[in-house]
Amino acid sequence: MDEEPNVAELQAVTWTGDALRLIDQTVLPARLEHLEVRDVDVLVDAIRRLVVRGAPALGVTGAYGVAVAMLQAEREGWDRAALEAAVDRIRTARPTAVNLAGGVDRVRPLIGDGLAAVTAEAGRVLREDVAANRAMGAHGADWIARRVSRRPLRVLTHCNTGSLATAGWGTALGVIRELHARGLLEMVYADETRPLLQGSRLTAWELAHDGIPHRVLADGAAASTILRGLVDVAVIGADRIAANGDTANKIGSVGVALACADAGIPFVVAAPWSTIDPGTATGEDIPIELRDGREVLAWEGARTAPAGSEGFNPAFDVTPARLISALVTETGVLEPARGRVPVPGGA
Amino acid sequence: MDEEPNVAELQAVTWTGDALRLIDQTVLPARLEHLEVRDVDVLVDAIRRLVVRGAPALGVTGAYGVAVAMLQAEREGWDRAALEAAVDRIRTARPTAVNLAGGVDRVRPLIGDGLAAVTAEAGRVLREDVAANRAMGAHGADWIARRVSRRPLRVLTHCNTGSLATAGWGTALGVIRELHARGLLEMVYADETRPLLQGSRLTAWELAHDGIPHRVLADGAAASTILRGLVDVAVIGADRIAANGDTANKIGSVGVALACADAGIPFVVAAPWSTIDPGTATGEDIPIELRDGREVLAWEGARTAPAGSEGFNPAFDVTPARLISALVTETGVLEPARGRVPVPGGA
Repeated sequence: MDEEPNVAELQAVTWTGDALRLIDQTVLPARLEHLEVRDVDVLVDAIRRLVVRGAPALGVTGAYGVAVAMLQAEREGWDRAALEAAVDRIRTARPTAVNLAGGVDRVRPLIGDGLAAVTAEAGRVLREDVAANRAMGAHGADWIARRVSRRPLRVLTHCNTGSLATAGWGTALGVIRELHARGLLEMVYADETRPLLQGSRLTAWELAHDGIPHRVLADGAAASTILRGLVDVAVIGADRIAANGDTANKIGSVGVALACADAGIPFVVAAPWSTIDPGTATGEDIPIELRDGREVLAWEGARTAPAGSEGFNPAFDVTPARLISALVTETGVLEPARGRVPVPGGA
Repeated sequence: MDEEPNVAELQAVTWTGDALRLIDQTVLPARLEHLEVRDVDVLVDAIRRLVVRGAPALGVTGAYGVAVAMLQAEREGWDRAALEAAVDRIRTARPTAVNLAGGVDRVRPLIGDGLAAVTAEAGRVLREDVAANRAMGAHGADWIARRVSRRPLRVLTHCNTGSLATAGWGTALGVIRELHARGLLEMVYADETRPLLQGSRLTAWELAHDGIPHRVLADGAAASTILRGLVDVAVIGADRIAANGDTANKIGSVGVALACADAGIPFVVAAPWSTIDPGTATGEDIPIELRDGREVLAWEGARTAPAGSEGFNPAFDVTPARLISALVTETGVLEPARGRVPVPGGA
């Protein structure tokens, strides 16, 4: 077992000194290309097109995005109001993940202290996320090893929560990497994650990179794969967690949770504390991004549905706390289904 | 409301007098093309490639397939053993739907009576299926109108169960057509149904043809669409129903059933009695076709997962009887979740 696969080449977000360098996740796995961003319009477009995605990676992107805006402001002679407006546009480029706004808000008070102060703080956001992921991996693997008796383990995951979705290592995929490093893992079932295939394009690419045995399956196959006894535990990430433990994550997650509950296996969410939004009481208060219906009506530009059909394309769903066996954070594990929710007294 | 949309042009399977004429469902909705089959190898390949699919349509195809084999036997001078072997190959071209074997078995005893006897009986299989679908539509619409109070209704369906999947009109989609004809229908949510997109390609095409309002969604979006209260009832078809009511249908169906149970809305299966297999005690005894993993790893020939990834591609799943609110047949409605199963005493 290779305890330390080379994850540097999987780093989704890096700062070059004068630009934000993103892996272009829209062209994986066919090509590994990078986009160097020096312009706020380009950055907002990249966030919306999912060149960079994943709640923790968006947090780091938001933090460095402020630096991009500052450099552009200097270059183009913006006043402070124009700069703040540009920062607001980055902050709200996508609505569901709380981390994007969180990353922006963390460095924003330092704008007056200059670029070096902002990029230093953004670098702390990045390093803290990697450290949090490593800690989540250990806590999650400990919890799963204690709660699930079968060896070796078969794990199902949804969407991408790895290096590409974070500052490095991964949340749910960090837990899976840790289980692999401990020699406990037999197989990862990776939901392809329609409509944008983050599972088959990104998670499978990371798993193949690390040499972790895996199978890609249609999202519709997840429930029966669980009910047939082929899976011991499901582990997913989160885009926003309400105070009561209700969790927004990529569309398709709650279906996995329902199947786990029916089959009596644990459903585990791995996410840093920064994903928890104490200002959001319950899942009903989480805004769900409704993306362009064409994402489910066409493929690489070719229409798969007839011309008269409309698409319905919510990007996230909400899993109620009662279905979440464990919420793995960098400081330890809560058990929402047993009433141990993030914020004591959370509605 | 148009009570009788022109469904003749949607007829999946017809007999020309000397050939079996199939709508090529692999090229819809881009093109409406037909395949005229006069050769058993071509027929078996067409069944496996899903040129024709859907349990009742496969029943009609199996019945006329015997006629195709008889004409080829005469043309090529096969002996009776060669003919029977060819018929066996048609009968077992796909394993899950009991109707394919059922259609073959119904006409097979008539081989000795000549082609006219075989095609006459196959024609009865076809006409009986259309009549059964019409009756199912009425029984299903009656049951739903009685059990669901909201007007107009929002219905979710999975895969394709319409004219293309049957001899005409449809099973689950026949129920939906009937609800539309009665003016009770607001919206159909059509799961796209990965990996082969029978929902977006075929169901949406039939709904657009009939002018029925619909939205196509990713399979992963079905559960949350139901949990958010956007759906009043789910209606699906079946490929094989065990004696105890456990139902095999297109992969993704059981996830819809779990969401309906959690949301407290009815989950309805519509299928002719010929789909019920008294020789299959429970869902565990239903063979599940495992199709080529490449169907989930590539799109129109272009790889979407990395080269090192394996696919896991079960074509069907089994919904346990306890999750099925209603089983709509041509003779009436059973309620498996309440213990009213197809075969009294079914295990």
